[in-house]
Amino acid sequence: MNVPVLGPAAIERVAVPRLILDTVRDASIAHAEGRTTVPPPLHLEFPGAEGDCHVKAGWIAGAPEFAVKIATGFYANPGRGLPANHGLVCVLSARTGEVRALLDDRGMLTAWRTAAAGALITHALARPDAAELAVFGTGQQALLQVTWLAELRPLSAVLVHGRRPERVAALCGELRSRGLRARPATAREAAGADMIVTTTPATSPVLDAAHVRDGAHVTGIGADMPHKNELPPELFARARIIATDDHAQCLDHGDFGHAVRAQSATRRSDTAVGHLLGSPVHRPDGAITVADLTGVGALDAALASAVLHRLLP
Amino acid sequence: MNVPVLGPAAIERVAVPRLILDTVRDASIAHAEGRTTVPPPLHLEFPGAEGDCHVKAGWIAGAPEFAVKIATGFYANPGRGLPANHGLVCVLSARTGEVRALLDDRGMLTAWRTAAAGALITHALARPDAAELAVFGTGQQALLQVTWLAELRPLSAVLVHGRRPERVAALCGELRSRGLRARPATAREAAGADMIVTTTPATSPVLDAAHVRDGAHVTGIGADMPHKNELPPELFARARIIATDDHAQCLDHGDFGHAVRAQSATRRSDTAVGHLLGSPVHRPDGAITVADLTGVGALDAALASAVLHRLLP
Repeated sequence: MNVPVLGPAAIERVAVPRLILDTVRDASIAHAEGRTTVPPPLHLEFPGAEGDCHVKAGWIAGAPEFAVKIATGFYANPGRGLPANHGLVCVLSARTGEVRALLDDRGMLTAWRTAAAGALITHALARPDAAELAVFGTGQQALLQVTWLAELRPLSAVLVHGRRPERVAALCGELRSRGLRARPATAREAAGADMIVTTTPATSPVLDAAHVRDGAHVTGIGADMPHKNELPPELFARARIIATDDHAQCLDHGDFGHAVRAQSATRRSDTAVGHLLGSPVHRPDGAITVADLTGVGALDAALASAVLHRLLP
Repeated sequence: MNVPVLGPAAIERVAVPRLILDTVRDASIAHAEGRTTVPPPLHLEFPGAEGDCHVKAGWIAGAPEFAVKIATGFYANPGRGLPANHGLVCVLSARTGEVRALLDDRGMLTAWRTAAAGALITHALARPDAAELAVFGTGQQALLQVTWLAELRPLSAVLVHGRRPERVAALCGELRSRGLRARPATAREAAGADMIVTTTPATSPVLDAAHVRDGAHVTGIGADMPHKNELPPELFARARIIATDDHAQCLDHGDFGHAVRAQSATRRSDTAVGHLLGSPVHRPDGAITVADLTGVGALDAALASAVLHRLLP
């Protein structure tokens, strides 16, 4: 086979934050402007093995490549010493249909795409002087959301809230090793920060809307299935701007959908993330803003293509 | 990447007809018995490039692997000296989700799966003494359907009908070089054969039901989209047995669906192909039988897995 297979080391070498941020911003704008093709994903379940497989595809109109991403999650793997997630990204020519390359990214591109999308909209919607960030959750995305936002604006303090104290301590340690002033916080303290990012698999809200202060911005990135819910509907009722990465997806399985079903927001009260990334957003100092991200396949395609072009110019 | 990439030469070495026929038979039976998972395919269009991409997946319950097949068709490629079809098959563990291998099969596995499925049901439903075969169409599947059926029963004559005389002559020559008595035929002659296989992209019936004789068997393999249609509804009205490889698919985009919409067959008048492959079929000598094949993703998965096990025992 003449198709190159590119591994994690090569991908990590070229996928610098600047490339990822620029690519994700441009792709988000294209998606908001309707210049993307994102078919409904394909899904298989393996109930006996606690496993599933999702296949997503995306294309930005006019781009020379499109991508098909195969991602599996087998949740009993860690007990056997194996990672839960596997898969690959196949990049194909949108002009001839030929397979251009396979990216064995170990899920990194999806993680970075999510980190960049979160950091970009948090930075775009937060007050220019906002410097205190709270993060809910202690997993990979908690670390990435903080460190990628720190690429975009100075952070005076990072409050970390999680259910397991040892994981909160570990994340604070990791963030401090990167020069950030991180400390554990209660949910109430964290909800009072200038900027809040939630990165949990929660199925009921992780913060109380009454604890969120006027002028704060909140980004939710955890909801990826209809039963998941991180942000309370009442928060959407208070929000002056509601940003969604994909209107239909967020209605179907995002926090925005929960708010609409609770009648705390109307179906058309959201603005596409991409429409808020192109130029500075007008936001009154005292306004609350909320972003609901569910993950857009066209961003994966754009990122895979950008990485490929750096590796195989 | 530690994932093996297996090319056409290796695949051709192990994918002998016996392996393919056995695998396709077993997988067809599993599908008929509801022991398969076949999610709706994912589909992208590239109108400016006359291209499309289909992603299909399938799993046979309990099998150690499942497969995801990416297939593109870019119909302006031949004008540039490139094949129209590209893609690959990704075989993954159904126990851990790990990628086991990539098969760069150049579409061969799909072609062989289709050939085997057609030959198996034609052989199962045709009269035991039927020996004259007619094939409509002159492409790759016309050649394969004839040669694979010749693996299962002796053929006394092969009638070839196509619109382009030079392609009919070429196929007859190829079949004769393989020891088969092949000759060009009119549509009316071909429709009078003991066994008929249609392999065209036709959008209106290629034969007249009145020309099909009592006791004949007809297999249609060309219909893969709702607007395609090879077999006339009246043929279904005459049929004693109607076999479909997937009830829902054949209703949606097979010849069976055309017959049901024309009220020449009832929605429940079909029998699953897999139910007819397990043991000898009782068919009265004078009965007409029809099979409508649209292609089942679980058969691709089974075949990819079987090939992989021969290559990486």
